[in-house]
Amino acid sequence: MRDVAIIGVGMTKFGELWEQNIRDMFAEAALKAMENANVEKIDALYVGAMSSGLYAFQEHLGSLMADYIGQVGVPAVRIESACSSGGQAVRMGFLDVASGMHDIVLVGGVEKMWDVEDGTFVLATASDQEYEAYNGVTFPGLYAMIARAYMEKYGLTREELAQVPIKNHKHAVNNPNAQYPFEIDLKTVLNSSMVADPLRLMDCSPITDGAACIILCPLDRAKEFTDKYVKIRGVGAASGPIALHDHKDLTRLEAVFLAGQRAYNMAGVTPNDINFVEVHDCFSIAEIVVAEELGFFEYGKGGKAIAEGQGTYGGKIVINPSGGLKAKGHPVGATGVAQIIEAYYQLTNQAGKRQVQNARIGMTQNMGGSGGSCVVHILEGM
Amino acid sequence: MRDVAIIGVGMTKFGELWEQNIRDMFAEAALKAMENANVEKIDALYVGAMSSGLYAFQEHLGSLMADYIGQVGVPAVRIESACSSGGQAVRMGFLDVASGMHDIVLVGGVEKMWDVEDGTFVLATASDQEYEAYNGVTFPGLYAMIARAYMEKYGLTREELAQVPIKNHKHAVNNPNAQYPFEIDLKTVLNSSMVADPLRLMDCSPITDGAACIILCPLDRAKEFTDKYVKIRGVGAASGPIALHDHKDLTRLEAVFLAGQRAYNMAGVTPNDINFVEVHDCFSIAEIVVAEELGFFEYGKGGKAIAEGQGTYGGKIVINPSGGLKAKGHPVGATGVAQIIEAYYQLTNQAGKRQVQNARIGMTQNMGGSGGSCVVHILEGM
Repeated sequence: MRDVAIIGVGMTKFGELWEQNIRDMFAEAALKAMENANVEKIDALYVGAMSSGLYAFQEHLGSLMADYIGQVGVPAVRIESACSSGGQAVRMGFLDVASGMHDIVLVGGVEKMWDVEDGTFVLATASDQEYEAYNGVTFPGLYAMIARAYMEKYGLTREELAQVPIKNHKHAVNNPNAQYPFEIDLKTVLNSSMVADPLRLMDCSPITDGAACIILCPLDRAKEFTDKYVKIRGVGAASGPIALHDHKDLTRLEAVFLAGQRAYNMAGVTPNDINFVEVHDCFSIAEIVVAEELGFFEYGKGGKAIAEGQGTYGGKIVINPSGGLKAKGHPVGATGVAQIIEAYYQLTNQAGKRQVQNARIGMTQNMGGSGGSCVVHILEGM
Repeated sequence: MRDVAIIGVGMTKFGELWEQNIRDMFAEAALKAMENANVEKIDALYVGAMSSGLYAFQEHLGSLMADYIGQVGVPAVRIESACSSGGQAVRMGFLDVASGMHDIVLVGGVEKMWDVEDGTFVLATASDQEYEAYNGVTFPGLYAMIARAYMEKYGLTREELAQVPIKNHKHAVNNPNAQYPFEIDLKTVLNSSMVADPLRLMDCSPITDGAACIILCPLDRAKEFTDKYVKIRGVGAASGPIALHDHKDLTRLEAVFLAGQRAYNMAGVTPNDINFVEVHDCFSIAEIVVAEELGFFEYGKGGKAIAEGQGTYGGKIVINPSGGLKAKGHPVGATGVAQIIEAYYQLTNQAGKRQVQNARIGMTQNMGGSGGSCVVHILEGM
C-alpha cells in the first residue's frame, strides 16, 4: 500500500445556507480545496452524503458533483454510512490512492438539511427503522437512553454532562466556519428545552447545511503541490449493531472501540501519542462514551474528566478544538470530512486562535447512528 | 496492486418479492454467496443501493446488513451511483482487496422497489432533478429522446429496435432467477402501451425487488476456497454529464466509452477478445448505444446488427445472456452485481442452457441515469 497525504482542504461555512442548494455548497468546498491544493484536475471523486434522496430529492451525487465542478469524466461515487458518510468517503479515497489506482482524489461530504420539514424523520432512517423509528424512538431518545444508563452506572451528574457542550461552544468561538460561534453557560444548558430526558436542546447537535472537501495524493508526490500536507497514518472502521437494543451494554459503543484499535494498530501509536481528537458529539453523552472507547479515559471516568477540564487546552487531550458537532454544526454527510479538515489545520499550524500547541498527531472519529458504524483516522503533521 | 478473484456468488430470484423486506433479500443473497465461496467470516462489506431512503425509508445499509448477516464488527458502507450502484460497489470491493487492506470482501447490491407507490419519481432522483425531473421529464422520456435521435440519424426502424427486448426475453427463458422468463414477439412489443414515444412498455426494464452478492479475495488465495473462481482483469469507471441536455450528441453515452477504454487498457484486451457482455439495457435503445460505445459495433450500426442476430448465440458477441435488465429484472442497486454473477456463471461453465460456449473473457457494463455514471468490468475464467 502506498502512503497517502492530504494536500489541500476547503469548506463552506456551516449553518442555514438558504442561498445555496446542494450542488452550490459542494462546488464551493471542492473548488476551494482544489485551489488550496494547487490542483486543476482530479483523477477520481468520492462524495459522502447520508440522505440526499430524502433531504434534497437528489441521488447520483457522484455524477452530479463531478459534472458541476467541471471534472466530468472522472470516476465518481457517493458513499453512505449515515452520519459517518463523510469519514467513510475519506476512507474510500484513501484506499483508492493507497491501491495505486488513482493519484489525485477529491473527497467531499455534503448535506442540505434545512430544506425539508421533518429532518428528524430523515435522520431516523439511520436507525433500525422497523424496530426503532417505526415504534416511535428517534435519535434523541436513543442517546437519552445511553445518557441515562451512563449517569446511573457511573454517577455522572446532569451538571457535569452539561460541561461537554459548554466546552465545545467555547472552542467554536475561534472557528470562523462554525454555525454557533458563541459561548453558553450552565444555566443556558439546564434551562434549554427538554428533548428526551435527560437530554436538553443544548445537548443535541443542530440541523446544518454545509459541505467540506479535501484533496488526497500519494505521500511521495505531496511536495509537488504544497509544503502544507499531512500524512494519513492510520485508518480504522467498524460496524456495530444498528439497533440500540442489540448493544450488550448501553454505556458502550463497541464499533468505536474496534475502529479505534484498528487505526492505532495501523498507525503504530497509542492514545498517549494523540495531541487532539475531533469526536462525533452528536449528543453530549456521545463525546464522553467515545473518548472512553478511544482510550483517552477509563470507562466511567470520561464524563467527570471532561467536566474537570481534561478535554480542553491545558488538559489531558484537546477534544473537538473545532467546536465539535454541537457548535460547529453537523451537516451529517459533511461532518467526517470537516473533522479531517480541522485536523489538517491543526497539523499544519493554520488553526489560528484555536491552535493546539505542538500538535503533531491528531485523530478524527466519525460515527453513524447509535454506533452502527464508525471510522477513525490518525493523521500526522510532516 | 494485488490481483483479485471472485470466489462465490449468490442471489435472490428477481421479481415481486412481497414476502421479503430489504434485509431479508440481502441476507438471502449474502449467505448463499458465503456458502458458495466456502467462507464463514468476511473482512469487509460493501452494499450497493440506489435509493433505500426513498424506497424503503432505511439508510445506513452497511451497518444494517453487516449486523443482519451475523458479521457485525466488519467495516461496512453503502455505495451509491444511481443504477450503477451495484457495479460501483464491486469496484470499491476490488480496490479494497487490491490495496492489500482486506482479504475476504463481500460485495452486494439490493433494491426493494415494489413497496412504494411512485417508483418512477424515485428513479428520477438519478437525473438532474432541478433541470430534468422538476420540469416533467423522467427516464422513459430521456431515453425516448435518445431513441428518436438515433432512429433519425441512423435510420433504425421501430421493428429493428424491438429486436432488443425480443432477444433478451429469449435469453431469459433459460435463467431460473429471471423476473420474466418467457418469450415475446414483435407484435407484443409493437402493441404494448406507449410510454414515451417511440418507447413502449416492452422497451422498458421493469420494477424489481432483488439482491445479489459476490465474495472477493486475493487471486493467490482463491484456491484455498474453491476451484471455481474468476479473475477481475479490468475495471473502468467514468462519470458523464448528469443532464441529457449536456450531452454533445444524443446518440452517444461518453461515460460508457471512457469506462470501457479504461477497462480495456487495464485488462490489455480489445473488443474482439470479449466472448459475451452483460450490458445495461434499462431501455432497448440503451443496449444499442452501449454496444457501440464498447466497440462491439461501429457507431450507427449496432441497432441493425443486433436486429440481424449479431447479439445472440452464433452472432458476433452474445449480449445479455442472462436476459438483461428487461427480462431478468432491474432491482437497480442489485443489477451491477447480478451482471457480475452472470459473468461468473458463464466463465465457470455453470450457466446451464444459456452457456456461451468456450467463454473465456466476459464483460459487464453498468450505468447510472442517462449516462451520468458507468462502470465496466472485464472478467477472465481461470
